[in-house]
Amino acid sequence: MSHEFDFIERVKSRQRPHAAVPTGIGDDAAVLTVAGGTGLVAVDLIAEGRHFCVPPATAELVGRKALAVNLSDIAAMAGRPQAAFAAVLLDRRRGRGFADKLMSGLEQLAAEFDVALAGGDTNTWDGPIIISVTVTGEPTGRGPVLRQGARPGDWILVSGPLGGSLDGGRHLTFQPRVELACRLHEAVELTSMLDVSDGLGRDVRHLTIGQGLGCRLFAEQIPVHSDVPSLPDDERILRALGDGEDFELAFTVSPTDGERLLGDARFDGLVCVGEVVEEPTVSLVLRDGRVAPLEEIGFEHGF
Amino acid sequence: MSHEFDFIERVKSRQRPHAAVPTGIGDDAAVLTVAGGTGLVAVDLIAEGRHFCVPPATAELVGRKALAVNLSDIAAMAGRPQAAFAAVLLDRRRGRGFADKLMSGLEQLAAEFDVALAGGDTNTWDGPIIISVTVTGEPTGRGPVLRQGARPGDWILVSGPLGGSLDGGRHLTFQPRVELACRLHEAVELTSMLDVSDGLGRDVRHLTIGQGLGCRLFAEQIPVHSDVPSLPDDERILRALGDGEDFELAFTVSPTDGERLLGDARFDGLVCVGEVVEEPTVSLVLRDGRVAPLEEIGFEHGF
Repeated sequence: MSHEFDFIERVKSRQRPHAAVPTGIGDDAAVLTVAGGTGLVAVDLIAEGRHFCVPPATAELVGRKALAVNLSDIAAMAGRPQAAFAAVLLDRRRGRGFADKLMSGLEQLAAEFDVALAGGDTNTWDGPIIISVTVTGEPTGRGPVLRQGARPGDWILVSGPLGGSLDGGRHLTFQPRVELACRLHEAVELTSMLDVSDGLGRDVRHLTIGQGLGCRLFAEQIPVHSDVPSLPDDERILRALGDGEDFELAFTVSPTDGERLLGDARFDGLVCVGEVVEEPTVSLVLRDGRVAPLEEIGFEHGF
Repeated sequence: MSHEFDFIERVKSRQRPHAAVPTGIGDDAAVLTVAGGTGLVAVDLIAEGRHFCVPPATAELVGRKALAVNLSDIAAMAGRPQAAFAAVLLDRRRGRGFADKLMSGLEQLAAEFDVALAGGDTNTWDGPIIISVTVTGEPTGRGPVLRQGARPGDWILVSGPLGGSLDGGRHLTFQPRVELACRLHEAVELTSMLDVSDGLGRDVRHLTIGQGLGCRLFAEQIPVHSDVPSLPDDERILRALGDGEDFELAFTVSPTDGERLLGDARFDGLVCVGEVVEEPTVSLVLRDGRVAPLEEIGFEHGF
């Protein structure tokens, strides 16, 4: 208990005042100012052995990731994050040095995004490290962008290359696309959006099948990340669609808006990977022009 | 993964629309309506072997407790809870029946408090059960009641008997004092408040020592719960002050307001246990009139 209390005091002493958080760490609950009357809340839990291992991850990168996955969720709503809450179950055997480094990784990323660490819960045991982070945020004036809203004919765009995130360690160091999401939302009408966490081949189902729609992804246009190991091209594409933990944005726009974005140098890096169709199937348009449902070409849905 | 997805779908299908939650389970973040422009956020994590064991706890009681401790935190701010988020790490070996029962315990309590289950994160492993719940709420028109604000001379009141919560299993079945906190806040000026989770002898420090003040607790007035085992009186009082997990409200009011509350039949069950003093010590006024700092009479601070 003594360590927990000291730990909380140390974390608290490092926090600066934040306009959106009149009362932060140290009370029963935090008090937040929600200027627009609409709040966003994202929650993600990561567990040692399941979402990270130490090593290769460092304490700092674990703390960073715990927050980053939530910032990515707020980005996926085209929102701006404001406050974070970290409920941690720390491994007593690793001592307070590890706990401090973990929080410092989290706090550093929070500072980069002007996010206040406003509360949480600290517990210790002799077991793997668990961190559950909650992030609150606000939508921009145009409101949140949901997973629901794509229309047949919409283009599907992603914000960057996919696959190999676990191979290359990118799942620990990725940059949440908060700024990009807000700029996109300002530039055009985003009809739906999410961040790619389970692999585009699975996550795109939320934007389509889940809404009674389908899509075609174009194999040639899937941006395969250089973290994907050297393999035959087809396998590399399946890795890009299946690996997950990319934390890039995937979103839908009208073809007109899609063309506008792809022609706009400010949005360099966006790639159109497919289009929304009425038939409720996720299929891949292969290089030779054949169209195959994803599951028929060796893609494991995993759920 | 298949179980997680089904599990989320089942949980989602059971949720009813809630006015404060335009978008709940199933998107990257929830969208909440925060009418008054001020939000409250509480986060607590409970872990198997640390905060509960199964048995004696059942799956339902575990889910219930995970939410109840957070509702108690919102009550401690004199707020009204609105939405809950459950990040769970479930034990794969216990199967989906256990997971469903756990969520049903949580959902039942949520329904009792008109709280929407608005999101979360579901993970499985072969290990102990971890649940981190986040609850958002709104203060009443009079604003939140903080831990800071007690004045020398204020009376310290508690909402019910203390001690023996773990012995009697009350830590799994307690009723969060949401209604009472809001009614108290309406009736008088609460100068500070918290919910007793680490034992009154420790928690009262947050209202006093942490604010540069102290207090005297009156041994004769400490309401000892019948869950405290038969022991000499002095030991029973130390148990009441030290056991923790009571989840009763402890708050401070002016003597005038204190008298008013104690004389009001609507607030039956409130007990005045002490008074705030300037000298920064937490002491106990014993039956024979002696005044002893808590730590000198065998009380372990624990932090």
